This record gives sequence, structure tokens and C-alpha cells, in this order.
Amino acid sequence: MFDLPKSIVLEDESLRDGLQIEKTQLSVDEIIRFVKAMEDAGVRRIQVGSFVHPKWVPQMANTDQVFQELERRPDVVYTALVLNQKGLERALKCRVSHLSVSISASETHSQKNTHRSLADSLLHIREMISSSVASGVTTRGGIQSAFGCAYEGAISVDVVCDIARLYDSLGAHEINLADSAGMANPRSIHEMVARVRAAVSPRVKLSLHLHDTRGLGLANMVAGLQAGVTTFDSSLGGLGGCPFIPKAAGNIATEDAAYALQEMGVETGIDWRKLADLAIKLEERLGHPLPGRLAHLPRAA
Amino acid sequence: MFDLPKSIVLEDESLRDGLQIEKTQLSVDEIIRFVKAMEDAGVRRIQVGSFVHPKWVPQMANTDQVFQELERRPDVVYTALVLNQKGLERALKCRVSHLSVSISASETHSQKNTHRSLADSLLHIREMISSSVASGVTTRGGIQSAFGCAYEGAISVDVVCDIARLYDSLGAHEINLADSAGMANPRSIHEMVARVRAAVSPRVKLSLHLHDTRGLGLANMVAGLQAGVTTFDSSLGGLGGCPFIPKAAGNIATEDAAYALQEMGVETGIDWRKLADLAIKLEERLGHPLPGRLAHLPRAA
Repeated sequence: MFDLPKSIVLEDESLRDGLQIEKTQLSVDEIIRFVKAMEDAGVRRIQVGSFVHPKWVPQMANTDQVFQELERRPDVVYTALVLNQKGLERALKCRVSHLSVSISASETHSQKNTHRSLADSLLHIREMISSSVASGVTTRGGIQSAFGCAYEGAISVDVVCDIARLYDSLGAHEINLADSAGMANPRSIHEMVARVRAAVSPRVKLSLHLHDTRGLGLANMVAGLQAGVTTFDSSLGGLGGCPFIPKAAGNIATEDAAYALQEMGVETGIDWRKLADLAIKLEERLGHPLPGRLAHLPRAA
Repeated sequence: MFDLPKSIVLEDESLRDGLQIEKTQLSVDEIIRFVKAMEDAGVRRIQVGSFVHPKWVPQMANTDQVFQELERRPDVVYTALVLNQKGLERALKCRVSHLSVSISASETHSQKNTHRSLADSLLHIREMISSSVASGVTTRGGIQSAFGCAYEGAISVDVVCDIARLYDSLGAHEINLADSAGMANPRSIHEMVARVRAAVSPRVKLSLHLHDTRGLGLANMVAGLQAGVTTFDSSLGGLGGCPFIPKAAGNIATEDAAYALQEMGVETGIDWRKLADLAIKLEERLGHPLPGRLAHLPRAA
């Protein structure tokens, strides 16, 4: 048997997870043009930016302005990342209806990324999730390094399940398991999804954030589909990467994922050819090639 | 459930499928050094070359000499490709114990590749398989473009099953389903393997030859594993490609496949780190980067 869901959602994160490690900073107009082009290609969930301090991630400094100027379609979900209460306030002022907050399952990754211990992060995230949910915003709790940490290696499934249970108890609507270092494999995806699924209420949606660091991005997506996951993060051309692993490939490419899903009979609503053209525009703007495959093949192939 | 076989065999085809599209011609000594290094890394099936006319594939002109000079280990299978009776005679003279012959399931691909119709190819292959089997050689019948053709698009599963039944009736020991144009997806792999498995005798082994053209190489390998396949072709660094699609990625990378399998608990006997180092040596010798992932990551990661 090879059972897959009938339809799924791809959340394109090019403009946040992708751009935040790039030297090039896109203008508000450019970001809005990319959002519109993705909408036109059928993408129905788009991460537009993140409400972080511009000192830490200058590429995201214009997220407030993007949200203020962006004409929002009723059939598209526009998401953003927030890291603290200040960011949450900015996001609410911008009427963002879907927010991601996230912590790392790895002590070392947590220390390096946020200068907080895992215990401190859990206290902090508790407050963030509660405020976001209380504000009536669809809230996603992310678990970074869920499938392994570039510093620590293996991560305990129990720790991931504990964080998932916490998110659930605070009313989070979605839990995102992130393979930040590209260390997942199809078997570990299958097992982790089953374990987390069993640990949280049925009302909680599970989603996967997959990196193609070791060439297993789409294999992991298929394992996720087989395990019943129906929301996956991706980026144009596979933009993104891992700040700790130079030259590492980034997210699964939205156009490659959309093509694979279409070929397997899973609906996404996306015209992968339009996205492949858009990925080429993005790499031209950024001045370097992106790892996605279909963008570089003859369009008829 | 996520059931995978306990152990599988990777047939490394760098030195045949990989090198045949390269401008660089390796010397007999160089080829033997690569074979020895692969053996040292634990590869247990190695395609050493092909017995074709040097006019068509000059890179393979020294296959006879390689086999004559190669010291063969009893625990390693050395394979080669033959295309006609003349090639078969040369292979037998070189005491090759495992031979691949192959035809395309696509009429157009067949015409372009061999200047023969599919019907003519079937007559020709019948003779080749019979002679090879009669000579006591382990014989593998390959079916190219089994999952789609760069010229024709979709390929009928019935045609593939008919060719598989013919191979079976002629005594072939293994049937290799080749995704020459990288058009397979996990679902089509699963369905095709089930259909072919049901069409041939249990004594016949099935193997898969997968290309990563659209980023689905390892996803397709996992689908093959789930369908019970235990032999996969691969190449160092993912060397290879498709002569009809410029810049297309080649085979699944042996080191990436071996890493993924190890992570999923499937034994290959291969030390992927040694192969990753060897892939770097190969790309240095060929003068261009290879698409494989692990070779380019820090070794500890």
C-alpha cells in the first residue's frame, strides 16, 4: 500500500527562512512582488517575514511595512515568525493572523541561537504561545533541531514529545517539527510523527519543516505524507541553509515539492512551472544559483 | 509501519554509466585504483565498464584491459554492460561473471539510442540474454526509461511487464528497472515494482537504477526499499546524467545512499565517509563538481 493524503498545503518560507541568511536585502516592493507572484502560482500559505530586532536580522527590518502595504487575499494565509513579546505586539498591530513561535529541542543549539537555556526557553515560549493564542491568532509552535542537532547529534524523542505536549496544553493550533540541520531520515520522520501524534490532542495539526542538507528532503516529505502530515514548509529554489554548515543546501524547493506531489496525485493547487520561473528570478536577484532541480531543467521536461 | 529490508546491495556504476558521458578518459591504472578504493570502502558490486565499440563510447575503450589487469576479490562482484554478441564474446574472454544487457521500453528512446525499433530490440535482446545465460554468466536484463521517457512521456506499465516476462522466460537472473530520465516518483516506483514482481518468477531479483534529475532519487530508493527491492545502482558523487537533458543531475550518489541507509538501519557494508572522500577525488580528476551532498559537507556533520 502507498497511501498518501489527497491534498496538502505548502508554506513557502523563501521570504523569511530563505532570505534571513542572504546578504542581499529585498525592498518592500520586491517582497510584495514575490508574494504576489507566489499567489499567482497557487501558493496558499506564505511566510512573509519575521518580527525580530533589525540588529539581529537586518534582512527582516521591513516586515512591518510589508504587512502594512500588502493587499491580502482571503484565500491565502500570510504567516510570520515572532521571537518575543515586542515582536508579537508588532505582529498584532500588523493584523497578522497566523504566527510561528519556536524553540530548539537541543540545549546547545538553544544556547547558541538565543543565549537561553532550554529551561529558560520553555518558560519564555509558554508566555509567547499563551499571548498569541489569547490574541485570537492561529498559533504554530515550532520545535527546531527535532531530528538531530548539528552540535549535539541525536535528540531525544521524549524531549520533543514533552515540548509538543506543552504547546498542546497552551492551545497552540499547529506543531511544526523542524529538521533544522537536515539530519532526519524517512524512518525517523515516520517514527517521530507517530510519537508526537500520539502525544497531543487530535485538534492539533502537525507540520514538517525539512532541509535537504543530505539529499533526503523530498524522501522525508514522502515519509511525512505516509505518516499523515498535510503541511510542509518549503522555499523557492530551495533557498536557505544552515548557518552552522557552510554551503549546505536549504529547505526543500517549493517547485520541486509541488511537482513531486502532483506526479503522485496529491493536490497542492500550485503550478510548479510558474514557481520554477520565479525561482530563477530569485536566484538572478540574489546573484547565486539555488539548489532546486526543476528550475534548471528545460520547462517541457 | 515503516518496514525496510535488513541489508541491501549498492552497485556502483561510476566507472561505466558515470564516466561514459564525461570528456575525461581515465587510464586503466586510474580505473583500477578507483575500483580498489571502492572495495576498501566496502562496495561489494562494481560496474567496471562496458564492452561497446570504442567508436561509440571511447571512454570505455579500455574495459578489456581493466578486466585483464584487475585483481578480483572473491567477495566483490564485478559487472559490465554488453550491447551485442561481439561485446558478449569480449566479456566472456575477460571472465566477467555478471553482465547487464538492456533495452528501452520507449520506441523513440530505442530508435535514438540504438537505431533499432522496440520490436527489433526485443529480438536482439532475446538472443543476447539467451547466450549470456547459456554461458553461465549471472545475467541482468535492464529496462531503460521504465518510468517515463524524455521523448514520449509516460510509458505503459504493461510494456514494462511484457519485457520483464520475456527476460524471465529467457532465464535472466535479475531485472533492472531504470529511471533513465529521472521521471519516476515514489508512488510510480511502488506500483511498478509491485506489478513487475507479480509478473515474473520469484527466483528473479529486481533492482532499480535511479536518477536524481528532479531531486527524487533517494525518495525513490526508499519507495523501492518499502516495495522490497534490495539492489540499487548508484555512482560516486552522483556522477552521470542524461544526454538529452543538459545539466541534469545523474545517478543517486553512492555515499549519500549509503549514509541514508545506515541512518535507517539498513546494512550496506559501506563506509560512506571513505566514499565521500573518493567522490571529492573523482570530481578533482574530472575537473567539475558533482551533485552528491555528503561529499561537500564537513565530515563530522
